[in-house]
Amino acid sequence: MSPYTTPGRIGRIPVLEVAPVVEGGRWPAKAVVGEVVPVEATVFREGHDAVSATAVLVAPDGTDHSWAPMVDVAPGLDHFRGFLQPDAEGDWSFRVEAWADPYATWVHDAGIKIGANIDTELMLAEGVRLFEKICRLVPDDALVAPGRTTRAARTLAAARRALADATRPAQVRFAAATSPEVTEALRRAPLRELVSASDTYPLRVSRRLALAGSWYEMFPRSEGAYQKKKKKNGTWVSGTFATAAKRLPGIAAMGFDVVYLTPVHPIGTTFRKGRNNTLVAEPGDPGSPYAIGSPDGGLEAIHPDLGTEQDFRDFVTTARAEGLEVALDIALNCSPDHPWVTEHPEWFTTRADGSIAYAENPPKKYQDIYPLNFDNDPEGLGLEILRILRLWIDRGVTLFRVDNPHTKPLDFWEWLLAEVHATNPEVLFLSEAFTKPAMMLTLARIGFHQSYTYFTWRNTKEEVEEYLAEVSGPQGSVLRPSFWPTTHDILPPYLIDGGVAAFAVRAVLAATGSPTWGIYSGYELVENTPRPGVEEQIDNEKYEYRPRDWAHADEHGIALLLGKLNEVRRAHPALQQLRNLTVHPTTNGQVVAYSRRIDADHLSRATATPLGRTMRAGGNDRRAPRHNDVIVVVLNLDPRNVQESVVHLDLSALGLNAPEGDENAPFFVAHDLLSGETYGWGAHPWVRLDPQVRVAHVLQVGPA
Amino acid sequence: MSPYTTPGRIGRIPVLEVAPVVEGGRWPAKAVVGEVVPVEATVFREGHDAVSATAVLVAPDGTDHSWAPMVDVAPGLDHFRGFLQPDAEGDWSFRVEAWADPYATWVHDAGIKIGANIDTELMLAEGVRLFEKICRLVPDDALVAPGRTTRAARTLAAARRALADATRPAQVRFAAATSPEVTEALRRAPLRELVSASDTYPLRVSRRLALAGSWYEMFPRSEGAYQKKKKKNGTWVSGTFATAAKRLPGIAAMGFDVVYLTPVHPIGTTFRKGRNNTLVAEPGDPGSPYAIGSPDGGLEAIHPDLGTEQDFRDFVTTARAEGLEVALDIALNCSPDHPWVTEHPEWFTTRADGSIAYAENPPKKYQDIYPLNFDNDPEGLGLEILRILRLWIDRGVTLFRVDNPHTKPLDFWEWLLAEVHATNPEVLFLSEAFTKPAMMLTLARIGFHQSYTYFTWRNTKEEVEEYLAEVSGPQGSVLRPSFWPTTHDILPPYLIDGGVAAFAVRAVLAATGSPTWGIYSGYELVENTPRPGVEEQIDNEKYEYRPRDWAHADEHGIALLLGKLNEVRRAHPALQQLRNLTVHPTTNGQVVAYSRRIDADHLSRATATPLGRTMRAGGNDRRAPRHNDVIVVVLNLDPRNVQESVVHLDLSALGLNAPEGDENAPFFVAHDLLSGETYGWGAHPWVRLDPQVRVAHVLQVGPA
Repeated sequence: MSPYTTPGRIGRIPVLEVAPVVEGGRWPAKAVVGEVVPVEATVFREGHDAVSATAVLVAPDGTDHSWAPMVDVAPGLDHFRGFLQPDAEGDWSFRVEAWADPYATWVHDAGIKIGANIDTELMLAEGVRLFEKICRLVPDDALVAPGRTTRAARTLAAARRALADATRPAQVRFAAATSPEVTEALRRAPLRELVSASDTYPLRVSRRLALAGSWYEMFPRSEGAYQKKKKKNGTWVSGTFATAAKRLPGIAAMGFDVVYLTPVHPIGTTFRKGRNNTLVAEPGDPGSPYAIGSPDGGLEAIHPDLGTEQDFRDFVTTARAEGLEVALDIALNCSPDHPWVTEHPEWFTTRADGSIAYAENPPKKYQDIYPLNFDNDPEGLGLEILRILRLWIDRGVTLFRVDNPHTKPLDFWEWLLAEVHATNPEVLFLSEAFTKPAMMLTLARIGFHQSYTYFTWRNTKEEVEEYLAEVSGPQGSVLRPSFWPTTHDILPPYLIDGGVAAFAVRAVLAATGSPTWGIYSGYELVENTPRPGVEEQIDNEKYEYRPRDWAHADEHGIALLLGKLNEVRRAHPALQQLRNLTVHPTTNGQVVAYSRRIDADHLSRATATPLGRTMRAGGNDRRAPRHNDVIVVVLNLDPRNVQESVVHLDLSALGLNAPEGDENAPFFVAHDLLSGETYGWGAHPWVRLDPQVRVAHVLQVGPA
Repeated sequence: MSPYTTPGRIGRIPVLEVAPVVEGGRWPAKAVVGEVVPVEATVFREGHDAVSATAVLVAPDGTDHSWAPMVDVAPGLDHFRGFLQPDAEGDWSFRVEAWADPYATWVHDAGIKIGANIDTELMLAEGVRLFEKICRLVPDDALVAPGRTTRAARTLAAARRALADATRPAQVRFAAATSPEVTEALRRAPLRELVSASDTYPLRVSRRLALAGSWYEMFPRSEGAYQKKKKKNGTWVSGTFATAAKRLPGIAAMGFDVVYLTPVHPIGTTFRKGRNNTLVAEPGDPGSPYAIGSPDGGLEAIHPDLGTEQDFRDFVTTARAEGLEVALDIALNCSPDHPWVTEHPEWFTTRADGSIAYAENPPKKYQDIYPLNFDNDPEGLGLEILRILRLWIDRGVTLFRVDNPHTKPLDFWEWLLAEVHATNPEVLFLSEAFTKPAMMLTLARIGFHQSYTYFTWRNTKEEVEEYLAEVSGPQGSVLRPSFWPTTHDILPPYLIDGGVAAFAVRAVLAATGSPTWGIYSGYELVENTPRPGVEEQIDNEKYEYRPRDWAHADEHGIALLLGKLNEVRRAHPALQQLRNLTVHPTTNGQVVAYSRRIDADHLSRATATPLGRTMRAGGNDRRAPRHNDVIVVVLNLDPRNVQESVVHLDLSALGLNAPEGDENAPFFVAHDLLSGETYGWGAHPWVRLDPQVRVAHVLQVGPA
């Protein structure tokens, strides 16, 4: 409340530059249930008196839910930070309250003056006056009252009496009012004056899987596909939902949460692409599942080779029983044979010669794809797509991987995702947009829950360090990254050249560098042969059946590693958070080190697993629930050579305090969750990573 | 308009990160009449079709006033920029319109395809269809219609006919549709489709003096003060408004716009400070004018030694006649003798012992100053201060230099400045806050028109380059910098040590580095002797009378330089703008180069002088009005030694194009506005600056 006749826009204590705020609050910032959300603001005041700030979390019903103290993390810049943790889904909000801190002001001034014996009695008398107010007023402050215990009240009353006791020396009286007990009591229930609130900003809280989960991509037609014997003309028989479902226990056993299916719709025959993206398909070539639509139907239909709608529902049921959710690819393209081409030509672009425009990137032509045109009948086309998504949701799909969303209008996506959210807030959308930053970020702003990223092309130490910091920083409240070492479209040079160790490196980096990661089927088999001249696999599964012999999956150790990584991720809440990463310097240009930490205070709300499973502690991972969960990853990026390095640990980021004296001396325990080994570490441990033995340490650290 | 049933918050073509926007639009961005305001936004779209953007300026009455094309200044980041120029005071606003550019899309696609002879006839037919739309639709677009001349319409119709003329070769038809004339006609009146507007953001436009002006600070009591002869006890007789007014023609002759008076109120005697800030004043010491209030009155009163209210009004009248406005220092402090201390003890802080708190910075005490307390009776105190400011405005004050605003609450300032603005928008406030960035910036956000800056402490090449870029960048739409080489409180080491040349360097830097600069009386005399141990002058005028012998002012050349600099500033609109600065690299660590440019298109609105004087062209400075105004400053920061350097000019920043071939060969003219010399320069001129002769070139550059 402003005391002035015409209130302005600044509070008594300024609160500015509040974060996370997306485009001035136009869209909500993102969080998930149990996420530890850093809230920041610039807070300062006139003159020299002390200020502080509180972050306040507001529940979807508009009531204050909880609060957290904020501390000045950049003195001189007046930049405060605190951490909020929503505990349910919904449209939450938050604000920052700035306030005068008369206790801190008095401690500062009285400390100096009593120390110099200036105005000593006056400063003590002012202290008594202050503590009388503290003892009288704090319980009336609804926000902080819950922090006031009977014991704290007794502590503060005792301080007031001691301050007023003229029989004691001044220094003793001052010390009684500044004891650790008093400080802690006032940290938990501060005396706040001139409280000034920021605006309230939106925070949309989704279920945990929006932030943290492990995805496994598969082409369902490949699983169980087989080639007839030559005498029976050698043609292929497609896998089906029923045969694909047989792979689900194997995927679940590796600890994945989501099985993602490439498009399952009928495939066009006009200009169908052949094997290895040749322009002319041979008889029997199944075509790309991204060329959607045939006389058998379009985006709502199921390819007859895969089965019926009931077969799809049965696949979903099997997946659920294995603890897996099903994500479906949504590619809003049509083949020339899609029913819409004749039924709704207005949903396409008609050229000057009357033909329907196919996709082009001049001078290249993609005649097997007709792009949709959203500008002739946006509402008609939008409602039809919404109807189709709801069909798939009804069939059990809970996540959509959206193919190339950046080629469709953003107002369409914003509307579509809002409509789905209104009825099915549990349904999550993953944006597959490998394009310019503004587009990628804006798709996230307007509602996509997760985004593919440039992770695949970040390989050197500098690139990895910078990218991990970028995706885990403020951007993390807008764009949730999903890290994929490969996809069916992408086989990067690092993996082509680096052998099994390279596959291990990228798996560890993806699984610990982002709370959501994904694997494309065949990663276990180290499939790393490119089609010459392009960064994708030879004999790409987009254009042919590709059954795999899973019996050999264990030979490379990658399948075991994937399972182990998912086990560690599930056991460690620190790895299920995004904005908690710190990069640690190392002395070797091939060795990267980073950590994630979640504090004990935040553990209980953070520990439910994405699918609501009971928490499973890792085999060697029984820890007292009152400890911080801290994971340190040290990774050798060189897949061919042994690398040794000193790691200069940022102890404050790990929540550790080095004892006095030699900080190189071991004083805490680092337990390798992959190997089971345990080390005694100091602030600057030395590591040696032989890629033939192991590419990384993934360590739980804590006091010895 | 969204085509969807539930409109979202993103437009058909996204427009994001619009600037200048202050805290999401909470406060208006700043501009002055004739200022060239850079407007920026992130604009992009789905797919590959071309987009563009327009900045639209909205007048205070809500009608569209003018528009400017925006261009992509950071391809890949989709960052567009254009320039708006308001032409009157008031609460303006602006928006950005993003749009699909079908002409650019067609030129791109058809250019590639016709060049490769792919779909040639189809592309030409689509071109005809496009030009039919261009010829039909553009005149209906209210915004761009003013750009459509009859000649442009004929050009476009001819292009349409040529495109459709099947008797000509395809390349000729395509060329006719992409000629420079067609391109220019469509640049001025583009075909805009899917137009999507950003929010509208506020832009408060003040009079020119808010951005550009030359200030001259004086203590009025010093001008005309004299010491009685010893036999008449040697006491001092104060200068008066009448004697101070005699100095005004000299100040005006140096080209200043504002005369700023330190406080003119009665001065307290309790704990009055003596000469050189001694704790005990001698009889006859006049005391600091910042210790305000005595039985003669307080902030509303005039010191009897200076004269009466009518004398003050006469001083203002004389100043006006000389083309000078009067700025008054407002120091919201009280001496213990201020009438408020007894009349309104609630406007101060009462200590636990019943005494009124004086100013302290423990353990230091400032017993001659009682700080105001705004929290006991904010409205009562606020209204009294507002009443007093209005008194001074009635007496002719049009600018307030506010002493230490950062020690008073920001909500008080926001309210006070809004109240004054409501009745007297011509009154300008200068913030004297040398403190942390958040406070300085926020004082500007909430309404201070100008701000003292860190300029005084930026002396090395790196510091100067970084600081000029900082104050001239985006911050310049919030905080208008005022550059002062010295003040009565500040005499920096560079000036203590550097002699006359150092005073010249800092004058050139202040006068050309910021559109507003100021000089403290005595700068002409190179007063550079510090009180030992502090960075301020010995025998500081705050504590004693300091009459000066202006007859000697010309001896150092500084007075002449000040006059010349103000003449050049007035003649060159480029120097009256803030956000038009470019730093140019040099090869010498003591030589700084920077430029300011305003384009011919913007000159007519930019050329009125701050006080509405008729434009005076400088003596050697007659230029055709259709040329850009471009000033290059090259400065030797070393006051003792000759320095030579190559300057690597950024030609695009100067609006110059080097001819083909040797870009070192002279191809443009650089005319030194201080010396009158003219040089032929290429892209990398060599300069030699001898501080005994001249410290800088201030050059007007243009085509030979």
